[in-house]
Amino acid sequence: MTTPEINLPDVLAEVTAAFARYEDALVHNKVEVLDELFWNSPLTLRYGATENLYGHQAIQAFRASRPSQGLARELLCTVITSYGRDFATANCEFRREGGTKTGRQSQTWMRTDQGWRVVAAHVSLLA
Amino acid sequence: MTTPEINLPDVLAEVTAAFARYEDALVHNKVEVLDELFWNSPLTLRYGATENLYGHQAIQAFRASRPSQGLARELLCTVITSYGRDFATANCEFRREGGTKTGRQSQTWMRTDQGWRVVAAHVSLLA
Repeated sequence: MTTPEINLPDVLAEVTAAFARYEDALVHNKVEVLDELFWNSPLTLRYGATENLYGHQAIQAFRASRPSQGLARELLCTVITSYGRDFATANCEFRREGGTKTGRQSQTWMRTDQGWRVVAAHVSLLA
Repeated sequence: MTTPEINLPDVLAEVTAAFARYEDALVHNKVEVLDELFWNSPLTLRYGATENLYGHQAIQAFRASRPSQGLARELLCTVITSYGRDFATANCEFRREGGTKTGRQSQTWMRTDQGWRVVAAHVSLLA
């Protein structure tokens, strides 16, 4: 075993594109894309600012019920890192339009047969 | 490419042991173990409840300066998942001794030449 190769350019490009697609879906409330990009598994989890969601089904129900307004945000700092060919993390700081607090979004991505998917995510506001 | 094998028993056991070692080091303020278990790279990052830390050096400086009292906590719900042989996520909810808010800790682990290491972490309190 050797430590995986970090930030192979083609892998990093793939994950960066997936991340951008997710961000676009988030701010435009494209719920079907958000659902697609989270790994369809009961093991997937998402800690949000105000809720802990276990399993793709719970995450999907949350997306379906959340307000579709006020989703615009600015990314302040994004760090995407790939490890080998099949894993990556994407972390960013963000600020909601009109908001004052800094948010943080962490995602772990895995390559699946269906494409890159988020297997775990955590979103919170800096205290 | 096929989706990695999930929760291979020997891999899951290794990561569970690494996670337990981290938890023990955290509540007993074994700073050298905490430093060891975070990947020694400028790409490592840790979003904490009140700070965003970029790079192993910044994380190490934070550990060195934090108070060593009041670190006890109870884990309420822990989900560790391994993907293939070299990657894993560890997520848990926790409550500080005497605290009322639920905390959440997310870690992405990678197998390195030196052993399992956290490459990204996010800790926050549920709003």
